[in-house]
Amino acid sequence: MTESPTNILTAPISKTRLEFLYDGIFAIAMTILVLELKIPELAERRSSAELLQHFAHHAPAFGSWLLSIVMLGIFWFRHQQLYRCLHRITRSLLVVHLWLMATAAFFPFCAALVGRYPGNRIAVIAYLGGAWLHVAALTALWIVAQRQEALDPQLDPVEVKQITRRFLRRTIVLLAMAVGYFLLLPQF
Amino acid sequence: MTESPTNILTAPISKTRLEFLYDGIFAIAMTILVLELKIPELAERRSSAELLQHFAHHAPAFGSWLLSIVMLGIFWFRHQQLYRCLHRITRSLLVVHLWLMATAAFFPFCAALVGRYPGNRIAVIAYLGGAWLHVAALTALWIVAQRQEALDPQLDPVEVKQITRRFLRRTIVLLAMAVGYFLLLPQF
Amino acid sequence: MTESPTNILTAPISKTRLEFLYDGIFAIAMTILVLELKIPELAERRSSAELLQHFAHHAPAFGSWLLSIVMLGIFWFRHQQLYRCLHRITRSLLVVHLWLMATAAFFPFCAALVGRYPGNRIAVIAYLGGAWLHVAALTALWIVAQRQEALDPQLDPVEVKQITRRFLRRTIVLLAMAVGYFLLLPQF
Amino acid sequence: MTESPTNILTAPISKTRLEFLYDGIFAIAMTILVLELKIPELAERRSSAELLQHFAHHAPAFGSWLLSIVMLGIFWFRHQQLYRCLHRITRSLLVVHLWLMATAAFFPFCAALVGRYPGNRIAVIAYLGGAWLHVAALTALWIVAQRQEALDPQLDPVEVKQITRRFLRRTIVLLAMAVGYFLLLPQF
Repeated sequence: MTESPTNILTAPISKTRLEFLYDGIFAIAMTILVLELKIPELAERRSSAELLQHFAHHAPAFGSWLLSIVMLGIFWFRHQQLYRCLHRITRSLLVVHLWLMATAAFFPFCAALVGRYPGNRIAVIAYLGGAWLHVAALTALWIVAQRQEALDPQLDPVEVKQITRRFLRRTIVLLAMAVGYFLLLPQF
Repeated sequence: MTESPTNILTAPISKTRLEFLYDGIFAIAMTILVLELKIPELAERRSSAELLQHFAHHAPAFGSWLLSIVMLGIFWFRHQQLYRCLHRITRSLLVVHLWLMATAAFFPFCAALVGRYPGNRIAVIAYLGGAWLHVAALTALWIVAQRQEALDPQLDPVEVKQITRRFLRRTIVLLAMAVGYFLLLPQF
Repeated sequence: MTESPTNILTAPISKTRLEFLYDGIFAIAMTILVLELKIPELAERRSSAELLQHFAHHAPAFGSWLLSIVMLGIFWFRHQQLYRCLHRITRSLLVVHLWLMATAAFFPFCAALVGRYPGNRIAVIAYLGGAWLHVAALTALWIVAQRQEALDPQLDPVEVKQITRRFLRRTIVLLAMAVGYFLLLPQF
Repeated sequence: MTESPTNILTAPISKTRLEFLYDGIFAIAMTILVLELKIPELAERRSSAELLQHFAHHAPAFGSWLLSIVMLGIFWFRHQQLYRCLHRITRSLLVVHLWLMATAAFFPFCAALVGRYPGNRIAVIAYLGGAWLHVAALTALWIVAQRQEALDPQLDPVEVKQITRRFLRRTIVLLAMAVGYFLLLPQF
């Protein structure tokens, strides 16, 4: 009797549905990045020069858009590599996914911030911090999956450890970049 | 002859497509929450202090964003648990899903409202009310599914009833919280 | 030799992918409706009365939001009934789907317009017109599917014709409503 | 030992997931086009004439919306034709897809720009350029797939080459249109 409620409520989470939700959030985050690129108010509607000048003036916003869509693409690719190795989704893995999805959904804000104020230290830190939180979540995904024995048992243990080390290295490098940027650059 | 039109028009709704639509709406609602976080207009574009001050001033908006994405994640998780137990989707269940999807789609508005005016009683009531409507819809989903015999017949009836009680309890607790907040807090 | 290019380029369109695209557009249209509900600028941030007054003043916007999400839900449900009966997607059916998706994607604009100016005849006509174009597209979907023999051959022909009549009737009733509204209501 | 890491990290990318992401981005790009159609501020809320005048004044925005949703629909259709022929997704193909998705996600910006400033040469060039980048990416998809032997081996090689020629022709025609527009039209 006490066993049965666990059947419905503690069954592993649907891997397909979590994948849908995750891919949906990435698709939207990658697309709404463009909403931060504003259409200018031109004094002379037909002036090519005025429109080009606007683009030149807002070049950092376009650069941030391009960088961010590429980064989200890379994040998605990395998740796709790791997710394939899971053979069940535990509640802890769901929590890690919520973290992954929240940082992906937050990324358009960081991208807009650094696109608007590329010379502002806090904006750059927010951007690097957002990216770092996502990479850290990917690393957590892999470590939690190992701890909870949620990985496909057919995977080579040596390879699994190599991937752990790679992701830990990336997490540390990105953190060092953010801290280094903060400490080394002169205060404005 | 009178039987046949029912074949096309009264056939059960595709469980997979409703799942897509539902997951899509959740993915979007969780992502567009970020559109309420506005990029500030800085007087001094490179001023770290000014940007930090803006963040400190708008901390409730960031708090509301985080709380709301976690709540939508929990709602999605609960739906995923219940939906798996359905073995057909009747029209009444579609109506309940429309209610679920409408409250999820409305949630970004509640989140924005409480993020902007965290000290406003009506904003808090709207937020709690929106969450309550969603939890009530989840409870309705489970009760309607039982009444219409849409649940997987292999489920343990004792467990099914336990889940009904749990969801009813949550619905009542959340309602009590909203009412208590309204009655007990001093009027501003 | 002339046959083979048609293998790749004239093969029927993937039914699953068109379904994804369609469901995705519906999920987004239903969710971005909420972006038209604006957060007010309150003079007194904690004033319940001021916020309630704002809601009362913008009640038509909330009404339009609710009506529109229900209408999109019904449109989705009708499409789901018809789409299931198709056994291949021809190019003409893709064109009809583009029409369906365009009218669904345009619907948030109509909803925002009528929510802002509920007493403006042109806003109401745009809303009814948008809904009519969608219902007409559903009717076209069914008629084109019959003409191109894209319906599941196991369907009862009598039932197929009954459905054609029902959709034609709905298309005409909605058109009559729009025209009647335009002709009968006094000019403001 | 050196072989095994490649098992996880160099396995081909999931064709289904990339399809989801791609279709999701198209669904969103096609839907958020509508966000550029702004609701006017009417002096006289019930004035049909004022609202009609607004629509007439902003007719290019509506035209650009319609053209862009049709173009995105055609792009999606072309991708669907080519994607079906792939039997595995290599990293190079993922890069091409990122290019395809980035240009699709950028399209609403181009559409908004040309809808607002239809007489501005730079706006038109941006629109044609955006479309050209997408068509060039589709061509690249087909060429890269052939080079990497990622196409279904059962396809007729003659047909494959015909399709390459068609896409190359389209890419060149669109480029010629953009260049021709830029060179031949009088400077404003």
